[in-house]
Order: sequence, then structure tokens, then C-alpha cells
Amino acid sequence: MTKTEIPDIVIGRLPLYLRALQRMVQEGRQVTSSQELGERLGISAAQIRKDLSQFGEFGKQGTGYSIEFLRDQLRQILKIDRVWEIAVVGAGDVGHALARYQGFRDRGFEVVAIFDSDPKKIGKKINNFVIQDVANMKDKIQKMGIKVAMVATPASFAQDVVDQLVEAGVQAILNYAPIQISTPQNVRVQFIDPATHLQRMSYYLE
Amino acid sequence: MTKTEIPDIVIGRLPLYLRALQRMVQEGRQVTSSQELGERLGISAAQIRKDLSQFGEFGKQGTGYSIEFLRDQLRQILKIDRVWEIAVVGAGDVGHALARYQGFRDRGFEVVAIFDSDPKKIGKKINNFVIQDVANMKDKIQKMGIKVAMVATPASFAQDVVDQLVEAGVQAILNYAPIQISTPQNVRVQFIDPATHLQRMSYYLE
Repeated sequence: MTKTEIPDIVIGRLPLYLRALQRMVQEGRQVTSSQELGERLGISAAQIRKDLSQFGEFGKQGTGYSIEFLRDQLRQILKIDRVWEIAVVGAGDVGHALARYQGFRDRGFEVVAIFDSDPKKIGKKINNFVIQDVANMKDKIQKMGIKVAMVATPASFAQDVVDQLVEAGVQAILNYAPIQISTPQNVRVQFIDPATHLQRMSYYLE
Repeated sequence: MTKTEIPDIVIGRLPLYLRALQRMVQEGRQVTSSQELGERLGISAAQIRKDLSQFGEFGKQGTGYSIEFLRDQLRQILKIDRVWEIAVVGAGDVGHALARYQGFRDRGFEVVAIFDSDPKKIGKKINNFVIQDVANMKDKIQKMGIKVAMVATPASFAQDVVDQLVEAGVQAILNYAPIQISTPQNVRVQFIDPATHLQRMSYYLE
């Protein structure tokens, strides 16, 4: 089965499976089942089996999945059995938080550069990063071969920054700016939109 | 059909439909179809029709959906035809960003309080908010009747903060701390985990 045949909605569930498996490894567990994974994630066991079956045979009927094996397989499928370098654009509150974020470690990503347009910020340091001038962003990203970026600029700058990132060869963008951005079809975008997450929960409020 | 019968995964798609509809309103559009919504969102038209049919009849075969009507219905279903007050815990980079975030407006939520444990931060202002002592958080939240919170503390404090929020009556938590937290079954949690979003895109990287 080729990549384009697997629906994106299935791909979107794999990182959730991976996170649950990683947690089980930390708990010292060795074997799990689609039932247990499903209960932890609020996804049906049948759905999980169907999703995983698209990529091969990862467990035997009745014996369940080897947690570490399945984790390693998912890391390979998601191409995070390596480290992808990330550029952060925008050195405001969110940019600072992303440059310092501890949650990327061992999960396939590492921030390597941060850009801003504010002369007062350019040249200053966040952890080990010197904030670089966004005017040089396109060149730098192209030279470094960076494929992943996180955009944390004000809404009004986001689309222009994204256009430049795309020209520089970036293929995956995590957008924190409170605006929907457009990209060519071969460039993936995920939108961090706290209001959407909150709305998913307000349904249940009493 | 009662609430508990509608799968959470369906509820989770409603805010995406709402966001797409809101965008169409901004574009000056009046009528849409499940096909068009599906194309914008990468979800099948059949899935969208099936999801919406769980809540009633929102369009007629062949004439499509009135965008504003469907938007208003979704806002009612998601209980955001009102404004929910939010408490932010943690006045670091992310807490600052959330207190200043412009994306909640008209989407059902409003930050009304921010708490931290750092004596250097307590009493300082972010926009119009005075950062309050987390030691008073439980009382304040209870008195104000706040049901929604966003946790942006370091990982090591997050579970303790969440336990206090739950005792104070909070029912929905958006967690930015890089750790999975536990809550009773009646308290909803959404986890903002940038690595998971990135992993969903790295599958497609070349």
C-alpha cells in the first residue's frame, strides 16, 4: 500500500498510539492489547487494529502487542527514528516557550534556530540560541536544509512568514498564530488553536 | 439521543466544522455543502453528514446548509453561545501568551484570572490582570464559579495544580505542561502537545 492511500486521519492517530505506548514503557510494561490502548485513548479497539493493520502485522491474535516493538515500528513509520531540525519564527512569549520546551526530546525534533524582526530582540539569546534577523531566514533555512518550522508571530505577519518558509523548502509548519494560513498542497500545516480545544470540552460543561 | 451516546470523537470534529463555517461567513458566503466542508477540512462528506445528523436536521438534500444557521446551531450544541470564564495557572511564557491571546474573542471564552507561585511575579500585571498567588487559587476559582482552566506550569507542578483545580470545581482543563495529567472521569482534559502535532506531519517529510 502506498502512502497516499492511507487517510491522513489514520496518520493523525499514530502519534497518540505512540505516546500511550511510550508511557507504558515508562511504567515498565511489556505487552499491551488494542483493548487497553483503546481504553486509555478513548478510541475503539477495532479502530486501533484497523489503523495498525494498514502498516503491517504488529501482533498475534490472542497475545497482544509487544510495546517496545510497536513503539519502534511507529517511530519508523512516522520517520522520527531520527531527529528533525526545527526553526522557530517569532521570539515573543510563545517563541520563547517553544525554544525552551522540554517535550521534544527523544520525540524526533530539536529546535535549532529562532528568528524575529524586532531589532531589540535580534542578537539576544534564548537558552543557547541567538535570535536571528528574519530578513536572513529564507537563506539560513535553505542552507541548513531545515524542513520543519513553528510560526509564533502576530497574526498579521504569519502568512508572509509562511510564504518565505515554503520558498526556503519547509514542508511541515506548526502554526501558533491565531489565523488560518495557506500553503501549497505539498506543505503540511497543523494549527495550534486553543479555542478549538476548549470548544471540544465545553460541550460537556454543566 | 442523549449526550452520552454521541462519541467524543464526533464532538471533537464539531469545533473544526465551526471554524470552517466562521471562515466562510467572513468570506461573505451564505450556503455550503458537506462536500465543500469536507474538502476544506480533509474529512469525507459522508462523515460530516453523519456527524451532523446526530444532532438534528440542519440542511435539505440538494440545497446544502445555511452557513450562519449551521454555525449558530453548532455554537449552541458546543455551549459557546455564552462566554465561559477561564483561569490560567502559571505566568511563564505560555501563561503570558494565553493571557494576551486574541483568538478567544467571540469563540466562547475569556481569560479572567491568572495565578503563579513565584513571589517575584505575584502582584505584577499582564494586560489588565494582576498575577495572583496560587495559594489562593482554589478559593478564588470556587468563589468565581470558574469551570475552565489552562495549566501552563512546569511539568513538576502540573498534577498538584490540577488536583486543586478539580477540587475547586473546574470541569475542563487545557494542559500545556509537558506531562500527562490524571483527573476524575467527569473532568475533561485536552493536552497541547506540540511533538504530537509535529509527528503527524513528519510522516510526509521527504
